[in-house]
Amino acid sequence: MPMLNEFPGDFRYVLGLQEAVVVGMADGFAQVSHTTALVNLHTSAGLGNAMGAIVNAAANRTPMVVTAGQQVRAMMTMEALLTNTDATMLPRPAVKWSYEPPRAQDVPAALARAFHLASSPPAGPVFVSLPMDDFDAEVDEAESLTLARRKVVSRTPPMPGPIADLARRLSSAVNPALVLGGEVASTGAIEVAVALSERAALPVWTAPLEGRLCFPQDHPHFQGFLPPGISLVSAALGGHDLIVVIGAPVFRYYPYLPGAFLPEGASLVHITSDPQEAAKAPVGDAIVGDARSALELLTEYVTPSGRRVPPRGRPQPEPDLVEEGGMSPISVFAALAEAVPSHAIWVNESPSNSLMFQDHVRIGADGAYLFTTGGGLGFGLPAAVGAQLAAPRRPVVAVMGDGSMHYALPAMWTAAAYGVPLTVIVLTNREYAILKWFGRLEKVSGIPGLELPGIDIRSIAEGYGLATRHVTTRDELTAAVASAVSAKGPTLIEVPIISTIEDLNR
Amino acid sequence: MPMLNEFPGDFRYVLGLQEAVVVGMADGFAQVSHTTALVNLHTSAGLGNAMGAIVNAAANRTPMVVTAGQQVRAMMTMEALLTNTDATMLPRPAVKWSYEPPRAQDVPAALARAFHLASSPPAGPVFVSLPMDDFDAEVDEAESLTLARRKVVSRTPPMPGPIADLARRLSSAVNPALVLGGEVASTGAIEVAVALSERAALPVWTAPLEGRLCFPQDHPHFQGFLPPGISLVSAALGGHDLIVVIGAPVFRYYPYLPGAFLPEGASLVHITSDPQEAAKAPVGDAIVGDARSALELLTEYVTPSGRRVPPRGRPQPEPDLVEEGGMSPISVFAALAEAVPSHAIWVNESPSNSLMFQDHVRIGADGAYLFTTGGGLGFGLPAAVGAQLAAPRRPVVAVMGDGSMHYALPAMWTAAAYGVPLTVIVLTNREYAILKWFGRLEKVSGIPGLELPGIDIRSIAEGYGLATRHVTTRDELTAAVASAVSAKGPTLIEVPIISTIEDLNR
Amino acid sequence: MPMLNEFPGDFRYVLGLQEAVVVGMADGFAQVSHTTALVNLHTSAGLGNAMGAIVNAAANRTPMVVTAGQQVRAMMTMEALLTNTDATMLPRPAVKWSYEPPRAQDVPAALARAFHLASSPPAGPVFVSLPMDDFDAEVDEAESLTLARRKVVSRTPPMPGPIADLARRLSSAVNPALVLGGEVASTGAIEVAVALSERAALPVWTAPLEGRLCFPQDHPHFQGFLPPGISLVSAALGGHDLIVVIGAPVFRYYPYLPGAFLPEGASLVHITSDPQEAAKAPVGDAIVGDARSALELLTEYVTPSGRRVPPRGRPQPEPDLVEEGGMSPISVFAALAEAVPSHAIWVNESPSNSLMFQDHVRIGADGAYLFTTGGGLGFGLPAAVGAQLAAPRRPVVAVMGDGSMHYALPAMWTAAAYGVPLTVIVLTNREYAILKWFGRLEKVSGIPGLELPGIDIRSIAEGYGLATRHVTTRDELTAAVASAVSAKGPTLIEVPIISTIEDLNR
Amino acid sequence: MPMLNEFPGDFRYVLGLQEAVVVGMADGFAQVSHTTALVNLHTSAGLGNAMGAIVNAAANRTPMVVTAGQQVRAMMTMEALLTNTDATMLPRPAVKWSYEPPRAQDVPAALARAFHLASSPPAGPVFVSLPMDDFDAEVDEAESLTLARRKVVSRTPPMPGPIADLARRLSSAVNPALVLGGEVASTGAIEVAVALSERAALPVWTAPLEGRLCFPQDHPHFQGFLPPGISLVSAALGGHDLIVVIGAPVFRYYPYLPGAFLPEGASLVHITSDPQEAAKAPVGDAIVGDARSALELLTEYVTPSGRRVPPRGRPQPEPDLVEEGGMSPISVFAALAEAVPSHAIWVNESPSNSLMFQDHVRIGADGAYLFTTGGGLGFGLPAAVGAQLAAPRRPVVAVMGDGSMHYALPAMWTAAAYGVPLTVIVLTNREYAILKWFGRLEKVSGIPGLELPGIDIRSIAEGYGLATRHVTTRDELTAAVASAVSAKGPTLIEVPIISTIEDLNR
Repeated sequence: MPMLNEFPGDFRYVLGLQEAVVVGMADGFAQVSHTTALVNLHTSAGLGNAMGAIVNAAANRTPMVVTAGQQVRAMMTMEALLTNTDATMLPRPAVKWSYEPPRAQDVPAALARAFHLASSPPAGPVFVSLPMDDFDAEVDEAESLTLARRKVVSRTPPMPGPIADLARRLSSAVNPALVLGGEVASTGAIEVAVALSERAALPVWTAPLEGRLCFPQDHPHFQGFLPPGISLVSAALGGHDLIVVIGAPVFRYYPYLPGAFLPEGASLVHITSDPQEAAKAPVGDAIVGDARSALELLTEYVTPSGRRVPPRGRPQPEPDLVEEGGMSPISVFAALAEAVPSHAIWVNESPSNSLMFQDHVRIGADGAYLFTTGGGLGFGLPAAVGAQLAAPRRPVVAVMGDGSMHYALPAMWTAAAYGVPLTVIVLTNREYAILKWFGRLEKVSGIPGLELPGIDIRSIAEGYGLATRHVTTRDELTAAVASAVSAKGPTLIEVPIISTIEDLNR
Repeated sequence: MPMLNEFPGDFRYVLGLQEAVVVGMADGFAQVSHTTALVNLHTSAGLGNAMGAIVNAAANRTPMVVTAGQQVRAMMTMEALLTNTDATMLPRPAVKWSYEPPRAQDVPAALARAFHLASSPPAGPVFVSLPMDDFDAEVDEAESLTLARRKVVSRTPPMPGPIADLARRLSSAVNPALVLGGEVASTGAIEVAVALSERAALPVWTAPLEGRLCFPQDHPHFQGFLPPGISLVSAALGGHDLIVVIGAPVFRYYPYLPGAFLPEGASLVHITSDPQEAAKAPVGDAIVGDARSALELLTEYVTPSGRRVPPRGRPQPEPDLVEEGGMSPISVFAALAEAVPSHAIWVNESPSNSLMFQDHVRIGADGAYLFTTGGGLGFGLPAAVGAQLAAPRRPVVAVMGDGSMHYALPAMWTAAAYGVPLTVIVLTNREYAILKWFGRLEKVSGIPGLELPGIDIRSIAEGYGLATRHVTTRDELTAAVASAVSAKGPTLIEVPIISTIEDLNR
Repeated sequence: MPMLNEFPGDFRYVLGLQEAVVVGMADGFAQVSHTTALVNLHTSAGLGNAMGAIVNAAANRTPMVVTAGQQVRAMMTMEALLTNTDATMLPRPAVKWSYEPPRAQDVPAALARAFHLASSPPAGPVFVSLPMDDFDAEVDEAESLTLARRKVVSRTPPMPGPIADLARRLSSAVNPALVLGGEVASTGAIEVAVALSERAALPVWTAPLEGRLCFPQDHPHFQGFLPPGISLVSAALGGHDLIVVIGAPVFRYYPYLPGAFLPEGASLVHITSDPQEAAKAPVGDAIVGDARSALELLTEYVTPSGRRVPPRGRPQPEPDLVEEGGMSPISVFAALAEAVPSHAIWVNESPSNSLMFQDHVRIGADGAYLFTTGGGLGFGLPAAVGAQLAAPRRPVVAVMGDGSMHYALPAMWTAAAYGVPLTVIVLTNREYAILKWFGRLEKVSGIPGLELPGIDIRSIAEGYGLATRHVTTRDELTAAVASAVSAKGPTLIEVPIISTIEDLNR
Repeated sequence: MPMLNEFPGDFRYVLGLQEAVVVGMADGFAQVSHTTALVNLHTSAGLGNAMGAIVNAAANRTPMVVTAGQQVRAMMTMEALLTNTDATMLPRPAVKWSYEPPRAQDVPAALARAFHLASSPPAGPVFVSLPMDDFDAEVDEAESLTLARRKVVSRTPPMPGPIADLARRLSSAVNPALVLGGEVASTGAIEVAVALSERAALPVWTAPLEGRLCFPQDHPHFQGFLPPGISLVSAALGGHDLIVVIGAPVFRYYPYLPGAFLPEGASLVHITSDPQEAAKAPVGDAIVGDARSALELLTEYVTPSGRRVPPRGRPQPEPDLVEEGGMSPISVFAALAEAVPSHAIWVNESPSNSLMFQDHVRIGADGAYLFTTGGGLGFGLPAAVGAQLAAPRRPVVAVMGDGSMHYALPAMWTAAAYGVPLTVIVLTNREYAILKWFGRLEKVSGIPGLELPGIDIRSIAEGYGLATRHVTTRDELTAAVASAVSAKGPTLIEVPIISTIEDLNR
């Protein structure tokens, strides 16, 4: 409360009803606005409630300053109620820096440092604990201004020598490939990636489980998303002799499918701004540096190539399929691909349908995409609200599973209360389909807790003030989406689906 | 999934839709059943989502073993997706022990140790990280059986000598007082406390912000709840020359209201099973030891007294008050006090109404009570579900604020899906009343984000499958409660209230 | 420096030349004086230098408050030189509490809490970081006095019921045995242990690798030290049907020698004041509680027994053996056993000779013994200095290996500078004999770095101001010791020995 | 031991007698050899003993992989003796990564990652805990080879755009200055710094308390070392309008001397490879990037200047001064400056004489220098041994205080045992002169423990096998040094000095 006293008019305060919601909204906002978000949480258990979302923000490399209140200094040592005991330990290991200023006068310096650190590559959340009574103290105004005016350039290009070597190897390779990750998006380098791909005639993949649009998915060089298993990646990249990975880890595997890391005869070069990511890759050489700078230098150094890049066969959408009261996910995505404007921002948190989403909702250069690379549920719904707050003039469409919906549900209230014109598509199959799929992969049976009956998500959404629709056919869906994206407030569209999990090896 | 493979029939698996809900349910279950709860969470962000609830469980001293999945061992070093990086750090400082076994064969020993530790005083959550593939390994069955059969007695009485001294001081004091805390409840010692109070003629207070029923609130010696401020406590205890605190911290202050810790001339002796609590108290001598044992020894050693204990004036309930569409909280509590059976378990998470709740819902010896001593929101609703699962034959009534409801909302689904006959009373004032109160105390103004309009909690509850009621008068409320406590499933009763925050100094 | 400003005359300041030395001296002092030691270290790397000794103090359960300086608050956030960055993290996990007060005014409360915690069972080191400028601030004197006068009783007996059960089992067992650990010494309960052993006719072992005298080694019931391997312990305890362990872990194994934890048909009951120790034992039931109280209650409850306790065959000392220029360790210990007065305090840090030391230096009821149960080298020499400071009228004899000497060497300076009349026996074999022994056990070869030639320890000791002697025969040794224990300052006696490592299975 | 089994002949194993010594030697070795050092420590207390030296290595940004043994996996959960409990916590916060592999098979990947991380900017120590029995396991050889062959380029230049801007500002500034730090040395960029200084006509300072030679101290543009206080730095830089700091923090202050951070009218640009360092500076703009690359780019971009750089007045050495049995430090340094060959590597750990050392031992381009930027004592002596091992053909001269000597004394043994031809100069004043100086600054008095009498350092050194000399005049010193630097083994030269602490404001 003391921090918010006489809240200044040139800040916009956005309320969320639970801490995980607040951090998720900030995550989406920061990613879409390319700024550093400031999140203020309640002390102790409040910070605790947010930890899952902070873990996601760390995985997403979202620049974010997280502050939490703390008891008044006079009552911390006796651990009065709502003292954040061992406050700087609580948010680890998900934050890059965790600090409680030793005096009220140090709050400006701590916040300044936090802001600069949050955005330095690899970006991520930082934490500052703020004793409540610090906001009643006087600070040296000149010193605070000096701090406020500091500018820090923290992105760094890769070393030009190794990049020139790589350009030569790219020029002389028989069948090279480019694999891109989210850092291409976060550094605003999609156009540079297109230029490189075209100049060097490179087929382009998105790295497994990336959370951003890294390359226009309707570009003829786009080959699709790499699958998230060791043997699957090497199969998918079979035939390439040089694989260049930019702005992604090598690689974000998920199920354990052992095998060779690379196809026979291939070599790999990895460019990332994260030294930890460079150090930990199991295969390939690595060059640390900014993705955009790397793409620019490669484009400058590489010899233009006349190689033909074969287009990847795009899976044909099935005809309109509705059975047992549900549409097939593929027909849903086909409908959405048509109904949603091309400059929309998509958010996806429907784990069991992600591969189909990727295949059928091909996002072009003027679109955007958010998915949590940490794999934690609860990101999608609040991130969509935050994205819409950051980009009020672009449609935001969140595709949610009916299980994912419950991880950060009260985000709906913020959407309604602040008039955020979000479209939420809930794919209802009344089960944890991703777990059933994983159970088949792991050859387990007799698992409890995989069914999810008895939820009327429209009733819940209406309780929070959203308009809702229930659709069962492609035409209804198309019409509902058209109406939702032009509405003034949020709309939830429930779409019953049948469970049709695709094979990872497809 | 591998852990749940061929899930054994003699375990009961209860699903919650978000991790904070699961831990909250386990907390309530463990407290009411006097057992140690086992909670299994999703890795990484999943554990993160639960951290607020784990912080609460730590404050509540709830014995709880928290496990979370971990990637397969072969992919941990490369940090594949959903690797719980630095897993044993993530849940600190809220757990008593945090461990990832170095081999699959050590999982039984780790779990055995975790269970024994969780329940040793001061009880609390412990954490074990479980790599997914460990469940496919063979363990030595004899060794596991040996571990499973170990019994550990971890409660310890206080030293008899200092207790005998204290008994003598109690016998010779002019106006001694007893202040009790949650450990009296968790050690099942309420009857012993009554015996001591009667034998030594001691007026009895509940320590500030306790989360359990520590003494029958309808007993003539009961004086009420101590208020949570330094100067308030010493004012409330004015006139006493010897204050004996058993099973509570000295004291759980919340707003900073400086002053003398004790009334003039008083001395204080503190008995607690927690050495940290003994060490950190700002005033008084301390004796470490089990609350029940301490009460038993004191009762044995103390000289019977003929002192008269004056009854505390019980605030008179106001007449039925309904204005501007809402009941007064006092009239709500008065109605509830009459309508709810005496053996009910009460759960309270309506912060701004807690003092009134305490004054007007006087819980007798056969009742029970849950409130989070950590102060974190999100405990009440799932704890009520857990409490009801632990005590299916006793009515459970949760009194919730309309802000608190949103911290662990999907607990409603578990209540409905498992047919848990819970009664949820939502006091709707469409604001964060406790923050407004705190803002007045802190003399701040211009605070954003204190209003909470536009929520139809009944619609949300119905979406999760609860029966709902909306009541505006005392008679309606009485009838609705009578119906709810005898229903087969959960019922939510919405009660619009007017905001009438009581003065702490009353 | 500000902390030491106008240093009060009623404190005794003892300087050590390196931080590990200082903590080691405090450890020995605290153990012998039965008080809590206060250690002040230099910030950052200074605290770092002490960490090994703090790890040892934690294993030894030595009550100790460790403080370290910190930069002035105004320069902490910019991390000026000698800022202790993340100060409260640095000493973990070796301390029970780690704290930096949020204000200068909270230093007294932090120190008070630290003192109470350090000595609460299980005792151990705690850490408080003290910003340098805090010592210029004013504190509330009344509040500090209130804190200073608090008394905390933190030892707790075991529950009487389970102890009564155990007493009955002891009375009816055919061949029970008692195994004792260091907590018997630290609670001053050796006499009680003797009484129990005599009343119940119990043979008594010292638990493996204990660091204190737990039972008079010349008592007819004393059976010796249990060996530190799983299979070795069960072999040594063969034939017993009930094993009662008091004040030790079950058990402190060192080399991995798998096998049954207990002899066939035996059951074990474990009494310890440490809940972690109770929870983690791999076998047996456990009762948490104070060792002395447990012994007193058992003695009270147990039925006197007429069983005969067979004496253990004491290994015969070999005749005076000197070959290749060195004495045998056994002949050294035999000589020492005769030459050293019975009320001496022994310190042992000669790892390869520990078993022989235990067999041949049988310490009686008026003697004492220090050995680090953490197994870290560097404890012995400073602990001996600290022990002698705590007990200036008792002889202190430290038996050191010529490898161990170098871990905390400058302790010699403090001994000389403060006139501490310590006797240091250095057994010189010019190798790391314990590692060679361990290498044989592990069946490894070709190991570098096991020889230790070229050290003239007398020259080093003389450089620090010690008197020194070099002896090669039993008579010389006896004479040198007699002279050293009555000297006014420290003496180092170098004794070349031959390496004769005993078999663990002996 | 299992790790060292059949130790390979192509590794050089160097033994140190205490862990702090080992890490200090590795630190010196790595800094001088420009490689990453591998240090293996004993578990638990052994790692603890090294923590001070690891804190120093972190401050020095020394690439170092620290491993420590761990109990066999089967006995870790029961915490057998010498289990490194919570092993990955113990070395924090001084390491960049702390890890215990989840399986024996993951040791190669963990070590590979550790090596790459240790050397990635900002370089520093990393920690890997190695269970003893892991060395008996089979690993996949192909996978290990793949890992071993990975190359990681982790240094990154600054962004060229901001550097070009800075070059323009340098060209147009009236009176710019260059301040250099240790990263100039560690990136091998001293010659580039000279080129820039000459091309742009820039006076050059060394940043406060730097631990490496950053610029030839005999170059006419060299202005000396900036003093380590806020107000002192701005005074020393008075008159400059643009200050460019490369490869140092802004700034490493030590005593708290508040004031303006910069001289009136000056602006500052800071180039560092450490984003934390960039973020935390209290003043100036920052650009993250490699020091050498920054210097190269600036040299390329900057316009040649005709400005005259005024030489700094070099303090005149006093005439030969010997009084009260001691030389003045200045006359010692003057003698050393003449007697020591120009390509020598200097090590300095004589805190109270550092300013005089800097003024009078002006190290030229072919010399080198080591000083711990962490400020922790115990670095100098072992670092000198390590430096000499890394550069066996260059003289290494360590200038030590007689207090500093005792922090890592057994380093002398390694020097003698391995025939390391080191020269150690011990300046003996028999007191903690730096503390006395600091006490005057802090205006404190009555401080105990500042005298250091009664040590014969030659006797100690001889005990470890060093040749020793005692000199009292300049001629004796010159002769002794000449002899020592051409000896085959280590020599210690004791030089009694008088205490003459210079004024920081000189």
